[in-house]
Amino acid sequence: MSEMMKKIEQELVSYLPEKDEYIKNLVDSMEYSLTAGGKRIRPMLVLEFARLCGGSEEAAMPFACALEMIHTYSLIHDDLPCMDNDDLRRGKPTNHKVFGEGCALLAGSGLLTLAFETASSEKAVMLNGNEKCLSAVKVLSQIAGAQGMLGGQIIDLESEGKKVGVDHLKVMDSKKTGALIIGAAKLGCISAGATEQQMKAAVSYAENIGLVFQIVDDVLDITSSTEKLGKPVGSDSENEKSTYAALLGVDECMRISKELTEKAAASLDMFEGDTTALRDFAYFLLNREN
Amino acid sequence: MSEMMKKIEQELVSYLPEKDEYIKNLVDSMEYSLTAGGKRIRPMLVLEFARLCGGSEEAAMPFACALEMIHTYSLIHDDLPCMDNDDLRRGKPTNHKVFGEGCALLAGSGLLTLAFETASSEKAVMLNGNEKCLSAVKVLSQIAGAQGMLGGQIIDLESEGKKVGVDHLKVMDSKKTGALIIGAAKLGCISAGATEQQMKAAVSYAENIGLVFQIVDDVLDITSSTEKLGKPVGSDSENEKSTYAALLGVDECMRISKELTEKAAASLDMFEGDTTALRDFAYFLLNREN
Repeated sequence: MSEMMKKIEQELVSYLPEKDEYIKNLVDSMEYSLTAGGKRIRPMLVLEFARLCGGSEEAAMPFACALEMIHTYSLIHDDLPCMDNDDLRRGKPTNHKVFGEGCALLAGSGLLTLAFETASSEKAVMLNGNEKCLSAVKVLSQIAGAQGMLGGQIIDLESEGKKVGVDHLKVMDSKKTGALIIGAAKLGCISAGATEQQMKAAVSYAENIGLVFQIVDDVLDITSSTEKLGKPVGSDSENEKSTYAALLGVDECMRISKELTEKAAASLDMFEGDTTALRDFAYFLLNREN
Repeated sequence: MSEMMKKIEQELVSYLPEKDEYIKNLVDSMEYSLTAGGKRIRPMLVLEFARLCGGSEEAAMPFACALEMIHTYSLIHDDLPCMDNDDLRRGKPTNHKVFGEGCALLAGSGLLTLAFETASSEKAVMLNGNEKCLSAVKVLSQIAGAQGMLGGQIIDLESEGKKVGVDHLKVMDSKKTGALIIGAAKLGCISAGATEQQMKAAVSYAENIGLVFQIVDDVLDITSSTEKLGKPVGSDSENEKSTYAALLGVDECMRISKELTEKAAASLDMFEGDTTALRDFAYFLLNREN
C-alpha cells in the first residue's frame, strides 16, 4: 500500500506546471495542498479496480491523479472563509492561511483545471487511447459538477444550522463524498476496458463504502480524540449539525456501517482476480480510528 | 451577428443540469451569470474560425459554449470579495451579491466543470468525434489553467498597488485575457480539422486582437462614460493601477492598437474563404465605445 502511495504522490506533482517567476506562488499553493498528505483513498481505488479488471496501474495512474486533484481542489475551496472557514487541515494550516484567500481560490481552480489537463495529457492518451481518455473526462466532469460533488456542497451549505433527516443526509453525502468514490471505481474500470457487469459491481462497492466512510466520519467526531483525528473532535455537536451519529446514535451507525461493508465486500464476488486488497480496504474504512 | 448570438445563448443554457429541489439555487446561480449578457466574443470567434476552415457552426457550437462557460466562471470568481470585490457586472448585481459568496464560489466551479462536460458530451462527440473532442478538452484545460488564464489572474492579484511596466502588463494580459481568445481560434480550427498553417494564422489573429482588446479597455476607462460602459469609469486611475493608457498615453495606445489590428487583419490573408466578418470584428474591437 505505502509503495503505491509513494508512486501516486510522485506522479501527482509531475503534472504541475513549471514555476516561472510569474506563477510561482500559484503553483506553490497548488503543490502545498497536493502534497499535504491524506489517505489517497480515491486514487488507490482507481488503481485497484484497474488491476482487478485486467488493466495496468500505469495506464490508470493519470486518471487516479486527476481524481485526487479534484478531491484536493474541493478541500481548498471548502476551507475558505466563505465556506467552512477552517484554519487547519490534516494538522497543517489551510491553503488560504498560508497563501491568502485570492491565491487559494485560484489554486483550487487550478487543480480542477489540471485534472482535465492530466486526463487528456499525452501520457494518458498514449497509455489509454483517445476514447478512454474522453470517457474519463466525461466521468470526472459529471462526478465533480453540479449533479455530483458541487451539488453535495450546495446542499451542505444550505443545510447549515438546519435540522435535517437521514434521507437528506444520504442525498447530500451520495453527492458530496459518494460521487468521487464512485468516480474512482468508474475510472479504474474505464482504463482497464472493464465489462458493463464489472463496472456495475465496482460502482455498487463504491456506493456502499462511500456511505460507510461518511457515517464513520460522523461517529469519529464523537468517539475519537483530537490527537488521533488531527482536527478538533466534537465540532459537529458544537455546531448542532445533523449527522448520522446524532440522528441514529453511535451503535446503530456502526451496525449499519458493518452491514454496508458486507454488501460492498459481496459486490466483489463476481470478479475473478484477487480482491483481497479491496475487501481489506472496505473493513479498514469501517474500523479506522481517524 | 445577432442571430448567431441568439443561437449561442440558447445552446449555452441547454447544457445546464435540471433543477431538482436540492441543487436549484446552484443551477440558478450558474444560469444567472451565463445569461447576464456580454458580447459573446469568444464563442463567436470559435464559430467564425470553424466556418472559415471548412467546418460547421453546429459542430463547433459545443466547444464555443464550453469556452464561454469558462469565461463566465472567471468573471464570477473575479468579482468575489477576496478578488476584485465588485458589486456590479454589466449593470447587474454580481453573482455573489444575489446568491451569496458560497453559492457564487460553487457556481463558478460548476461552470468550469460544465465546460469539460460540454466538450465531452454526446452531442460534441457525435459532431466532432473522440479525437477532436479530446483535443478541445486539452486546449480548454491549458488556456484556463495555471499557465493560462489563472496564471494571468495571479499576476494581476500580485500586481495590486504596485507600479509595473508595459512588458509585465503584456505577460499578464496575454494570459489573463489573451489565452481564452487564442483558445477560441484554436477550438474553431480543431472542430473544422484545420491545417497547421491555418491554425497558426488563426492564433496570430487572436494574439493581436487579444492585446487590442485589453489596450482599448484601458483607454475606455479614461475616455468613455459610465453610461456607455455600464460600469464606473476612472476606476483604474483611482486605484493607481498601472495600465497601458497610464503608461503610454491614450494617443500612443490607439496608434499601437491600430497597428495590431492591421496585423490581425493581415493574418487572415492566407484563408481562401470569406474573412469579412473576422476583419470587421477586429476593427469593431478597435473602435468600440464600450
